[in-house]
Amino acid sequence: MASGDELVTSSNPEHPANLIPSLCAKFWTLGWVTGTGGGCSICEDDLVYIAPSGVQKELMKPSDIYVLSLAAQDASLKNRVYLRSPPCYKPSQCTPLFLAAFTLRGAGCCIHTHSHWAVLVTLLLESTDSPKMFEINNIEQIKGFGRGFQKTGNLGYHDTLRIPVIENTPHEEDLTEFLEEAMRQNPDTYAVLVRRHGVYVWGDNVHKAKTQCESLDYLFQLAVEMKRLNLPWISEVTPVGPQR
Amino acid sequence: MASGDELVTSSNPEHPANLIPSLCAKFWTLGWVTGTGGGCSICEDDLVYIAPSGVQKELMKPSDIYVLSLAAQDASLKNRVYLRSPPCYKPSQCTPLFLAAFTLRGAGCCIHTHSHWAVLVTLLLESTDSPKMFEINNIEQIKGFGRGFQKTGNLGYHDTLRIPVIENTPHEEDLTEFLEEAMRQNPDTYAVLVRRHGVYVWGDNVHKAKTQCESLDYLFQLAVEMKRLNLPWISEVTPVGPQR
Amino acid sequence: MASGDELVTSSNPEHPANLIPSLCAKFWTLGWVTGTGGGCSICEDDLVYIAPSGVQKELMKPSDIYVLSLAAQDASLKNRVYLRSPPCYKPSQCTPLFLAAFTLRGAGCCIHTHSHWAVLVTLLLESTDSPKMFEINNIEQIKGFGRGFQKTGNLGYHDTLRIPVIENTPHEEDLTEFLEEAMRQNPDTYAVLVRRHGVYVWGDNVHKAKTQCESLDYLFQLAVEMKRLNLPWISEVTPVGPQR
Amino acid sequence: MASGDELVTSSNPEHPANLIPSLCAKFWTLGWVTGTGGGCSICEDDLVYIAPSGVQKELMKPSDIYVLSLAAQDASLKNRVYLRSPPCYKPSQCTPLFLAAFTLRGAGCCIHTHSHWAVLVTLLLESTDSPKMFEINNIEQIKGFGRGFQKTGNLGYHDTLRIPVIENTPHEEDLTEFLEEAMRQNPDTYAVLVRRHGVYVWGDNVHKAKTQCESLDYLFQLAVEMKRLNLPWISEVTPVGPQR
Repeated sequence: MASGDELVTSSNPEHPANLIPSLCAKFWTLGWVTGTGGGCSICEDDLVYIAPSGVQKELMKPSDIYVLSLAAQDASLKNRVYLRSPPCYKPSQCTPLFLAAFTLRGAGCCIHTHSHWAVLVTLLLESTDSPKMFEINNIEQIKGFGRGFQKTGNLGYHDTLRIPVIENTPHEEDLTEFLEEAMRQNPDTYAVLVRRHGVYVWGDNVHKAKTQCESLDYLFQLAVEMKRLNLPWISEVTPVGPQR
Repeated sequence: MASGDELVTSSNPEHPANLIPSLCAKFWTLGWVTGTGGGCSICEDDLVYIAPSGVQKELMKPSDIYVLSLAAQDASLKNRVYLRSPPCYKPSQCTPLFLAAFTLRGAGCCIHTHSHWAVLVTLLLESTDSPKMFEINNIEQIKGFGRGFQKTGNLGYHDTLRIPVIENTPHEEDLTEFLEEAMRQNPDTYAVLVRRHGVYVWGDNVHKAKTQCESLDYLFQLAVEMKRLNLPWISEVTPVGPQR
Repeated sequence: MASGDELVTSSNPEHPANLIPSLCAKFWTLGWVTGTGGGCSICEDDLVYIAPSGVQKELMKPSDIYVLSLAAQDASLKNRVYLRSPPCYKPSQCTPLFLAAFTLRGAGCCIHTHSHWAVLVTLLLESTDSPKMFEINNIEQIKGFGRGFQKTGNLGYHDTLRIPVIENTPHEEDLTEFLEEAMRQNPDTYAVLVRRHGVYVWGDNVHKAKTQCESLDYLFQLAVEMKRLNLPWISEVTPVGPQR
Repeated sequence: MASGDELVTSSNPEHPANLIPSLCAKFWTLGWVTGTGGGCSICEDDLVYIAPSGVQKELMKPSDIYVLSLAAQDASLKNRVYLRSPPCYKPSQCTPLFLAAFTLRGAGCCIHTHSHWAVLVTLLLESTDSPKMFEINNIEQIKGFGRGFQKTGNLGYHDTLRIPVIENTPHEEDLTEFLEEAMRQNPDTYAVLVRRHGVYVWGDNVHKAKTQCESLDYLFQLAVEMKRLNLPWISEVTPVGPQR
């Protein structure tokens, strides 16, 4: 075994080095990580597990995973020290973006997709009065999102889900400052859209990141279908039932 | 074994505690239970098997299942006594809605989906003259539905399938009274749409609930595609062949 | 073993009693046989293998299959004698339609789907000047079809594929005379569309029926997408390359 | 073993004779090789591995594969000598097109799909001012393509991806001269669209051909969705972030 290989070797299917490949294979079938795009990272205690750059996501193996220490990173998140590096690969350009979710939001998992629905939503917003914010309300699936950072409970049916949109940059790691700025300006969001590129979604743990990412992709697809049918994303609905 | 675990432990794949996870995994691939939304419940004799709240539907295990006695519930369906509860979970908010199908319709299985097609149909109806009723006729798949509660035989090709629509409420269990009212006003329906939310579909047994739910989702998708192509849901078709 | 069970018992995966379930499971994932709709039948020498009515197509087992003798059927195809009947099922209403493909065209396999794309094509044709014939040309996939009954070779790229459309009847077996009439009027077709219902596709053997059915569903989907984008199904294309 | 069978017999899943069937099965689920259309070929050193004509792509076996020697082919690529031929099959009409990618571009793998999205893009281009070139820019997935033949690095986010379109011919092998001409006129492209037919995509190795083909299909689907939503394929986007 090479140095650090013990960090990605486990018979437990819930170990991050096993979970990332199985999650990515599932995401590939959903069209989220086509052609090596997108990815997924898990942070457990101090350890961050990240898939390499340019790997076919449905074929990934635990031995492909990078591991780094969260505490060992400096504030810029740019001079990274790896506890374990797979041979023959390069680190993902998404790394500083995943680290931002872990350090600024205490997330336990962050998922990046290139889903068509996410990209189309950012394209549809481009020519509107509010190109920097996706907003939708009065759809049940909105209840799949937490109320926000360090808050308890989930959004309600009548609440408006707001996902900020940042502009894409030629180099993915250059997105980091804009992602961090969007997090600061939207402290309760669990996701940031990247124009003409995709979306970053995180959660307190793998379960929450994955289910929030699914719920969001569901809403993006619904939003595109609604636009085709001339149905508005924001509506006024008269409340029904007991108000609590 | 904890108390009640024997109620969800069986080597028979047709046992409700085994069927619910395998059905939910299938429903997940169909996009019906994305992001922990939706669910499925089976009633066999007096026992009701229900999935917990907030679980990833494609990962569910028999040991995740709640079991309660139908006879032990009071009329309000709100003070529930469980014969078996899984650790670490909360009961589903859908529980009283499933119970309504079992008590008012003698259903053996009830499925709740968040399918995009169901939601889009309710959105398309919103601005019509008949926002509370989905109607379609002269499509072969309509024959996939029973004629109604305690009736024999299935709908015919020329019959109009009618599915009532109720308004969504902030808390899912508050839908119960509206679902029950829709059942009373539409005694023969096997399904109720919930605006901006999804659909509840039931049947005398698992086979019928599942095939009726599939047929309905097929019709909802077809209806959305028809709307995009400016094709009406209700048509006059001259009967062909021997009329019996 | 009950009488006739040996007709559906084989360890050979290519045996019709094994092939029909595996084909139907595949068709279910393609959305062709949703909610017990549609089906598949194979004719090998004198024996005809048919799935029962009302079974979930992705769950079918070899022991569910009916077997009848082609020679033993009378001309009306209505007084059927079964060599083997599964317990607890009813014969499929599609039976006389499958038999028509076997007796009139010498087909070895016939597939019936309720594909959305087939239904939408029949709906789109309804309001045109030629509601009884689907026509498309200058698409490569057209080469997936044989030139016709007892002819050798396949259609060419510039050939027009023509699929007749018959009107639906309340009882599926009443379609038989119209299907037979369409076969007589269109001797070279390998498929007949049924308005608001689906399509019947056959071939000399399982391979040809299945690949022609796939190619046709591909063309139906393409045709619907073309209609959405205002692209005509019939075009004039200047030939390129050596003409042979 | 028949002569040449050792060329397609290996326990290594990465051996071309094993890879082609597993890739084609995956492509079938993506809708790229419906109804025996499309295909895939791998070139390793001097050996070229090619699937036969008319085989169901999700059922292909290593023993179905043809093998020929690249060096043994004459300049016309038409008088082919096979080192190994499967019984009962005919060579694919795509053979000279795959060979063109191997000889003119030194590709290690070439994929041919009949994807709906590729065909629709060529149909949408037909009536434009630039029917012979698909162009798209400012979409992240463009970075999935290499800069071109014998160049290092990949396209950037702001670069325009250009894929030439050639007209279809009645006989697939007659496409060869047009494909070669398109390669000469567009030396950096890794793909050529064929009007009303599909697309050929290649890469230095299997990994690159497959991920470029996925990225391209992603972009074709996005382009069709954009057209439906009246969003242009070419845009002016103000650069963001440090320019390097």
